[in-house]
Amino acid sequence: MGKPKALILPPQSRMDEVCSAECVSLLKEHFEPIWNEKGKDYTQEELAELLRTSQAEALLTSWGSPVMTEELLELAPKLRMIGHAAGTVKGRIPPTAFAKEIRIFSAAPRIAQSVAEYCLTVLLSSLRYMPTFDKQVKEGNWRIDSLKGRELAGQTIGIVSASSTARAFLKLLAPFNVNVLVYDPYLKDEAAAQLHVKKASLEEVMLCPIISIHAPKLPATYKMITKEMISSIPDKAILINSSRADVVDEEALIEELQKGRFFAALDVFTKEPLPADSPLTKLDNVLLSSHVAGATVEGHLALMQSVVEDMVRSMKQEKTMTEVTQAMWENMA
Amino acid sequence: MGKPKALILPPQSRMDEVCSAECVSLLKEHFEPIWNEKGKDYTQEELAELLRTSQAEALLTSWGSPVMTEELLELAPKLRMIGHAAGTVKGRIPPTAFAKEIRIFSAAPRIAQSVAEYCLTVLLSSLRYMPTFDKQVKEGNWRIDSLKGRELAGQTIGIVSASSTARAFLKLLAPFNVNVLVYDPYLKDEAAAQLHVKKASLEEVMLCPIISIHAPKLPATYKMITKEMISSIPDKAILINSSRADVVDEEALIEELQKGRFFAALDVFTKEPLPADSPLTKLDNVLLSSHVAGATVEGHLALMQSVVEDMVRSMKQEKTMTEVTQAMWENMA
Repeated sequence: MGKPKALILPPQSRMDEVCSAECVSLLKEHFEPIWNEKGKDYTQEELAELLRTSQAEALLTSWGSPVMTEELLELAPKLRMIGHAAGTVKGRIPPTAFAKEIRIFSAAPRIAQSVAEYCLTVLLSSLRYMPTFDKQVKEGNWRIDSLKGRELAGQTIGIVSASSTARAFLKLLAPFNVNVLVYDPYLKDEAAAQLHVKKASLEEVMLCPIISIHAPKLPATYKMITKEMISSIPDKAILINSSRADVVDEEALIEELQKGRFFAALDVFTKEPLPADSPLTKLDNVLLSSHVAGATVEGHLALMQSVVEDMVRSMKQEKTMTEVTQAMWENMA
Repeated sequence: MGKPKALILPPQSRMDEVCSAECVSLLKEHFEPIWNEKGKDYTQEELAELLRTSQAEALLTSWGSPVMTEELLELAPKLRMIGHAAGTVKGRIPPTAFAKEIRIFSAAPRIAQSVAEYCLTVLLSSLRYMPTFDKQVKEGNWRIDSLKGRELAGQTIGIVSASSTARAFLKLLAPFNVNVLVYDPYLKDEAAAQLHVKKASLEEVMLCPIISIHAPKLPATYKMITKEMISSIPDKAILINSSRADVVDEEALIEELQKGRFFAALDVFTKEPLPADSPLTKLDNVLLSSHVAGATVEGHLALMQSVVEDMVRSMKQEKTMTEVTQAMWENMA
C-alpha cells in the first residue's frame, strides 16, 4: 500500500514562509506530496482539475489558497483530511466536509502562541511606560517624576473569552502569580479550575486593572463590550485587544481613550488598514500595531508542521490537537 | 523583656514610597519603632545623637539616609541588625559591622524582581519591533513588509553574570522554553544545573542572538565586554543592559549600534543623565530608559517589608533570604 497522496496548494514562495525544512521531510515521509510548482496560488479551476485527477487523500492549504466549496469536495471522493496552515477555516472549508468524514486541521493553536507573546509584550510595555521612557530619554529628558513603571507580578487580569489565545497567554503569565477573572459563557467550572482562573461576568472583567480581549467575531459578540462597560474601565487600567475590533464599541473606546484615563494596546480595528486620520493615531496612551499579533517569523514557519504532525497522528489513530470538530464549528470565528 | 527598639531613618514621604501598611504593622508587632518625624532625612549629626540615646537594636535605612560610618557604629553598642530598604549596601555600611556581629539585610533581591520584569519587557518589545509598529501605524503606514516580529519561545539567550537579577529573569523565562548560556566565573556546575543553564565563556555568550548583561560594577568587570566582543554580536541580535554601563565598552557599542546591525535596550549609561546629544538618542534600533529597571511602584512599596520580614526571621533563628554576609561582600557591587 503506497503513501497517501497529499495535494499541497501553496506555491514555493508561501511554502518558504509557512513550511519548515522539517515539515518538508515529514510530508515526504508520510505522504506522496504533489507540490505547487506554478509559482503562484492555484485558481479554483486549476484546483478542480487537480482534485479530479490526483486521487489526493490529503489537502494542505494556507492563506491565498482557493476557497474549498461543496462542489470541489464532490470532485475528490478520496479526500479524507484537510490541513490549513493558517488560522480561520470557517468560510474556507464547507461544513459539509464533516458529513463526508473529512477531518479538518487548523494551525490556529500555533498562531495562538504568537498572539500570546504579543499580549504579554504590550502588557509589560504599557505597565512600564516603555514607549514614553524611550521617547523622553531620546528627547533629552531624564527624570520624569510622574512616571514610575508598574509590575505585573500579583496583578489582577480580566480575560474576555477563554479562547486558545487566552489559554496560551495564561501559560506565559504563570511566573507572575496573577489573579485571573474570565468571562466566557461556555467555560465550565471544571475547566476554570484547571486553568486556575475564576469565572466572572463581563461587567466584572471590565472592572479589572488589566483587561485582555480574546473573543471571536460572531453575531453574539458584536459590540458586546458596550459604551457603559468602557466607561467603567478603571483609571490607569490597560486594555488589550488582539482578537477582533467588532467585539468592542470602538467609537466609545476612542472617546474614552481621548480622555487619557487609561491605556490600550490595539492590534485590530473596525476599519483596516487603520486610516491615518483615525483619532487613535494621535494618542500617547495607546500602543498600535497592524493586525500582526499572530504574525511572527517563527510562528509562520511552524504553521504547516503543526497541522501535518496532527494529520500524521490521526493516521495513526492517535489523539489529535489541532483538529476542528463539528461541535466546535458553531462558536468559532 | 520588651521589643527591640528600631530606629527608622526614612522620613514619612519616603516611607510612603518604600513601606507598605503591612510593613508598618510588622514593625509595630516585632519592634518598638522610632519614626523619623522630622519631615526630611536626618543629618549624620542627628543620627549620631539618636544612636547614642536610643539604645536601638535595629536600624532601617533607605536611599537618602545618612551613610553609616565606623564611628557611628561605635555609638550604638546594642545595634545588631541593619535593614536597607534599597539595593546597594556597599559604601553605605562599613564592613566592620560583621566583626561587631551586626547582621545586614538588603532589599536587592526584591529589586531584582523589578529588573527581571524590565528585561522581559524590553526583550519582547524589541523582538516584536513594537516601537516601530506603533510609530509606523501612527504615521499612517499599515503593511511594513520588511517587518515581521520574532518570538521568544525556543530562542537561545546568553546571560552575563548569574546575579540575583539574572536569576529572577530566568524565572520569568520559564514558560518560553529558552536555551540559556551563562557566563559567570563564580557559578558552580551544580548551581548551573539547578538553574537549567549551560556555563559558557563570555565570548560564547556574546555570540547569542539575545544577550542580557547582569554583571556588577567591579574593577574586574570594567569594560570586560570589549570592542571585539561587541563586533561579534550577531546581526539582528538583541543586547540588554540593565546592570552597569561600565561593564561594556560603551564607545564601541555606540559605534556598532550606529551601523544598525542589531538592537539594544539600555537602561544604564556611563554618563547619567544621558546627555541629550548622545548618539544613542538618534537611533531607532535602541530602546532607552533612565536607569529605572529596578524602579516600580510595587517594587518600591515592597522594599522595607522584604528586609523587615527577614530581620524577623533572623530574630526567630530562621533561615534568612536577604542577608548580606561577609563572604558575599567582595564580589558585590
